[in-house]
Amino acid sequence: MTSIKFKNKRLFYLDQTQLPLKEVWKECRNLKDGFKAIKLLEVRGAPLIGVFAAYCIAINLKQLSGKKEIFLSQLAESLRQLGSARPTAVNLFWALRRIKQAANKAKAKDVSFIRQVVLREACSIHKEDVLLCRRMADQGVGLIKKGDRILTHCNTGSLATSGEGTALAVIFAAAKKYRNHLLVYADETRPLLQGARLTAWELFKKKIPSKVICDNTASSLMAARGIDKVFLGADRIAANGDAANKIGTYGVAIAAKYHKIPFYVVAPFSTFDLSLRSGKEIPIEQRNPDEVRKIMNKIEVAPGEAKVYNPAFDVTPNELITAIVSDRGIIRPPYKKNIKKVIGTHPI
Amino acid sequence: MTSIKFKNKRLFYLDQTQLPLKEVWKECRNLKDGFKAIKLLEVRGAPLIGVFAAYCIAINLKQLSGKKEIFLSQLAESLRQLGSARPTAVNLFWALRRIKQAANKAKAKDVSFIRQVVLREACSIHKEDVLLCRRMADQGVGLIKKGDRILTHCNTGSLATSGEGTALAVIFAAAKKYRNHLLVYADETRPLLQGARLTAWELFKKKIPSKVICDNTASSLMAARGIDKVFLGADRIAANGDAANKIGTYGVAIAAKYHKIPFYVVAPFSTFDLSLRSGKEIPIEQRNPDEVRKIMNKIEVAPGEAKVYNPAFDVTPNELITAIVSDRGIIRPPYKKNIKKVIGTHPI
Repeated sequence: MTSIKFKNKRLFYLDQTQLPLKEVWKECRNLKDGFKAIKLLEVRGAPLIGVFAAYCIAINLKQLSGKKEIFLSQLAESLRQLGSARPTAVNLFWALRRIKQAANKAKAKDVSFIRQVVLREACSIHKEDVLLCRRMADQGVGLIKKGDRILTHCNTGSLATSGEGTALAVIFAAAKKYRNHLLVYADETRPLLQGARLTAWELFKKKIPSKVICDNTASSLMAARGIDKVFLGADRIAANGDAANKIGTYGVAIAAKYHKIPFYVVAPFSTFDLSLRSGKEIPIEQRNPDEVRKIMNKIEVAPGEAKVYNPAFDVTPNELITAIVSDRGIIRPPYKKNIKKVIGTHPI
Repeated sequence: MTSIKFKNKRLFYLDQTQLPLKEVWKECRNLKDGFKAIKLLEVRGAPLIGVFAAYCIAINLKQLSGKKEIFLSQLAESLRQLGSARPTAVNLFWALRRIKQAANKAKAKDVSFIRQVVLREACSIHKEDVLLCRRMADQGVGLIKKGDRILTHCNTGSLATSGEGTALAVIFAAAKKYRNHLLVYADETRPLLQGARLTAWELFKKKIPSKVICDNTASSLMAARGIDKVFLGADRIAANGDAANKIGTYGVAIAAKYHKIPFYVVAPFSTFDLSLRSGKEIPIEQRNPDEVRKIMNKIEVAPGEAKVYNPAFDVTPNELITAIVSDRGIIRPPYKKNIKKVIGTHPI
């Protein structure tokens, strides 16, 4: 399964807002399309946003000036604009920075060469992302035992990356290893229901035993000893291991701690932001109140005048995280030291 | 505001499944109507169910046989049937038991007299419920300070009782006392969204400052020091203080404990079930998976084939409860001793 396609220099993506009812592929023709797709969560998932944004910059180059000076300034402006689509997931900025660096290195050459360089860099980011997913799966699969009942939150699979996923890739690998002798509970993940719409759909397609629960149900399942482990993703991890992820992750982490259930975050090196000392520095996106008031933009559930607090992410402090599974290895506390050792100091 | 009306021996109720979009009053004409209304949550809220069920038995009496022996056996069967509508909230059984005891006392008299006795008992239960709400408000209001930011879950107001409410009655009293200098966060309360649909609506009608949040957002608000206190209701409280309440309550309690935020349960004496030693003995209702899969029975959000775990309630262990506010006083730990002292041993 894949959620973006780059073919004959054209960029297509599965509109995730319409899943699971409809599988609609759309074309991203320019920067504006790409910005909208990311902003509206038609394309979502921290790693996928990075790959998609890189391609988006690449396909948009043909719309820029042929004169190099103007071309370079328009490219810089495109990178800035696309980077403003969403503030929390760091993979977006990481991918755009790679594009910028590649273009910078080639800036002495002509415009058509720079175009090729940018396109090549986007393709590299894409290929690497697929590989990173495989590596995370390899690193994490040993943490799961046959028969484990695993809780996950939001979506971290083929719809969140351009490969098999982050946390879901680990779960998929375990399901394969144990011939589906495990059970996955998917938090529905309000307000946009990525768990019910996307994770349940991916698990169902792969015939992996699963159940959907409301987000508020996880803790009572834990109390009933119905959950053995938690696996979920991240949108940005600070140098001390604090991890921003989809709203609700923090509550799951507190409940897991209370019930002494291992809590694993799975993310590639590109999700780490070592320029931030702690999670307090991670900017949290506030989204439209109507996401809460009107479900799927259709059914009004709260009075139209009701005020709403709708942050898209929360931050889980490192002391609640049992381990972080990265493509480069499993990182355990003390995080500050071990993240530095395993992830190094990649630039953001 | 009121959510049931008994007028000229006819029973009317506000269909809560249609709120806040439509205010539709329906008539309950017989036992079948009443059973359906409770089962489908058209009438909900532990204390309200008790009052409504008592009236429902009373209005249904005219459909029973005029021959006393048959009448009494049909009455017993009606009580049994209505008691099977929902298993968790104990107020239903408590009210039906009061009706049964009243009828029993009068069983030497003729059918028309027994009818009057039952009707009078239903009216008493109703009047008492209004009074209990006022008393809970009086008992609890001192726990709230001017400016407090209060989190609540599900609905515990005029739509959950026949008076002002349980937890919401306390909040209403504080809002009046402090001229609305407080802020209420209403958990939307999936799957049936009683917080977004009903609590936000009640707070809005009373012009009390409030915001709706997704259930999974409360813990990050707590981390940001945005919540001072939690007030919510209960459907059944065991002798040791363990409290069953709407699913999600337990998660809120764990998060409150983690952040050292006071967690108050507000319930009348009729919600206590001293026949149960602990919350482990409270039966938990499992509801239709479609409540989770299809929002408001309209929008499919999970794949139709997805399995779902949908308990309507969870149990919060007594160690997570700061105090229980009852109509008879504020009960603090040790609960076993203090509940016995304050609530006594009322029959269930």
